[in-house]
Amino acid sequence: MRRIAVDAMGGDRAPAAELDAAAAAVREGAELEVILVGDQPRLEEELARRGVPARAPLSIHHASQVITMDDAPAAAVRTKKDASMRVCFDLCKEGRADAVVSAGHSGAMLACGLFVLGRLPGVDRPAIVTTLPTVGGSVVLCDMGANVDPRPELLAQFGVLGGVHAQVALGRTRPRVGLLSNGAEESKGTSLTREAHALLKRIGADPGLGLAYLGYIEGRDIFGGAVDVVVTDGFTGNVAVKTAEGAGLAILAFLKEAFASSARARLGALLARPALQALKKKIDYAENGGAPLVGVDGVVMICHGAATAPALETAIFQASRMVGHRAAFRERLAAAVARTQDIWQSNGGPDRAASGGVE
Amino acid sequence: MRRIAVDAMGGDRAPAAELDAAAAAVREGAELEVILVGDQPRLEEELARRGVPARAPLSIHHASQVITMDDAPAAAVRTKKDASMRVCFDLCKEGRADAVVSAGHSGAMLACGLFVLGRLPGVDRPAIVTTLPTVGGSVVLCDMGANVDPRPELLAQFGVLGGVHAQVALGRTRPRVGLLSNGAEESKGTSLTREAHALLKRIGADPGLGLAYLGYIEGRDIFGGAVDVVVTDGFTGNVAVKTAEGAGLAILAFLKEAFASSARARLGALLARPALQALKKKIDYAENGGAPLVGVDGVVMICHGAATAPALETAIFQASRMVGHRAAFRERLAAAVARTQDIWQSNGGPDRAASGGVE
Repeated sequence: MRRIAVDAMGGDRAPAAELDAAAAAVREGAELEVILVGDQPRLEEELARRGVPARAPLSIHHASQVITMDDAPAAAVRTKKDASMRVCFDLCKEGRADAVVSAGHSGAMLACGLFVLGRLPGVDRPAIVTTLPTVGGSVVLCDMGANVDPRPELLAQFGVLGGVHAQVALGRTRPRVGLLSNGAEESKGTSLTREAHALLKRIGADPGLGLAYLGYIEGRDIFGGAVDVVVTDGFTGNVAVKTAEGAGLAILAFLKEAFASSARARLGALLARPALQALKKKIDYAENGGAPLVGVDGVVMICHGAATAPALETAIFQASRMVGHRAAFRERLAAAVARTQDIWQSNGGPDRAASGGVE
Repeated sequence: MRRIAVDAMGGDRAPAAELDAAAAAVREGAELEVILVGDQPRLEEELARRGVPARAPLSIHHASQVITMDDAPAAAVRTKKDASMRVCFDLCKEGRADAVVSAGHSGAMLACGLFVLGRLPGVDRPAIVTTLPTVGGSVVLCDMGANVDPRPELLAQFGVLGGVHAQVALGRTRPRVGLLSNGAEESKGTSLTREAHALLKRIGADPGLGLAYLGYIEGRDIFGGAVDVVVTDGFTGNVAVKTAEGAGLAILAFLKEAFASSARARLGALLARPALQALKKKIDYAENGGAPLVGVDGVVMICHGAATAPALETAIFQASRMVGHRAAFRERLAAAVARTQDIWQSNGGPDRAASGGVE
């Protein structure tokens, strides 16, 4: 049984979306147990209204507090000890749950991950790894927002984190890794990307790591299928992913306009509707699952604040699959980080990359 | 007559795309003259093959050299004095042309702008201003790639450059300006964006500037219509714009797949085809016009290397319109920059923002 702790008070639509997602997940998913963490009386009432019994595989664990978007992450994690999010992490730490899923404050998720679960051996900072659809497949982007001002060594380590994730979770045998920049030429980039580029070259040159480093890529290469892993700092990665989301929604709106432009187009749209709805589902971020926080000692799935019930349900299944991969991921990452620590030591040492606190 | 110097040797499809664009532009555009700059014998031959006479309003100006993507911008501008791109700028400087259009090396365009035309009074660094379609209108983004590592003062000045461009070229009376970040909360961003945010607040508070500063925006807000001007550094701006382009092309590919998924969807696609082609034109960057280099003393239009003939034709018309706005833009920018210089002086002085060379 994989036990997923779901922060029932986290997202913009909490607890309704979380409850619907959990109820659907345990109905559909075999060997899956969901622990809803939050205000017990309220959650019991909401479950009763849905005609769902509040017992395993769908149980409730009481938590009296909630971390809001106004909370400072580090302080909230330390002072709101009974917050639904924090309690999810505690359940994992105590071995009473195998994974955390939350659509709450992502900064607080990172803080909980660091503070409660801690980092995996050799990892300087955890990162958010998101999976995006491409023409013909998918691509992994690391970091999507956990580290906004990383040092070059840390940026290079995101290549290892994202690469090992692509190996284990996506089954890519030798993931192609690209560093996001403002042009493909080596003269492009910032001092940060140029230093990270030099380190990633060395990482790519080590056949024992199984990572093919292709150098700089541009924004438009993210979705082109030429790479499996996009390496970037959390600021740029966050901007890129959200810009793609915004562009996707704008194009859906343009498409609606185009379809409304003539009687002929309206008929065409009517016929193509089922196909278009599948497309919308693929593009709309509120309908997509979560992004794992990789590098902490546990399985943590960060969801959009606006995540819908189907998105949260997907995130619960993703978390369950990651629980299955966890041992392989830990082992592979530990080996990879040990090899790359060696590379970094000749470049000033890993300490340079370590940084405390939550940004 | 507005005289547009077109770098006929610049883009990936040069000189064919440039020649087709120029021929179409002078055929359609009133009061428009195009000077094709490049290898005269070759251009004459290509024009003859098209049955187009090589005389005004479509003349040829010989240039024996070409700046390629392998050239270092600053060196190329100084040493390749007879390069087609450089000669376009010289024609402007000498008053023999009113604007430059090129799909060549954008770094070299910036270097030519700085070296040949120079900066407008009070402008620290020119920036690339691109216009993107939004739901219900358009948005201006500044900088799209001219300055990858700007200081906060420079980033704040991009708000003024982009804002005045939106006022004059797009007719927005009080443009809403947003600073691109990884979240809307003030605690988000990098040290660069946080410092620029404080400066932009002061700029927004000066009613004489006519700019409404709304604070941080996220990537997904770019296309939502809530702002007229997106302020960002050239690295992030370049990544954001190219990511949106890549997402757009991927979505077109997904759409194609969706339309091929059933007989019903195929029929729908057939009926909606004209509407979909209009959509493709709106999204596909190779079919869109150029982005002006704003802040140099002249009208300069930077096009995609992959720009098609229709895209270059659009850029020629854009350049022509900008020639019409030039006096108003200069005047308004000079006034705005003078006011903001005053704001910056209390913050360490404008010298801190000045930087030489081309990145």
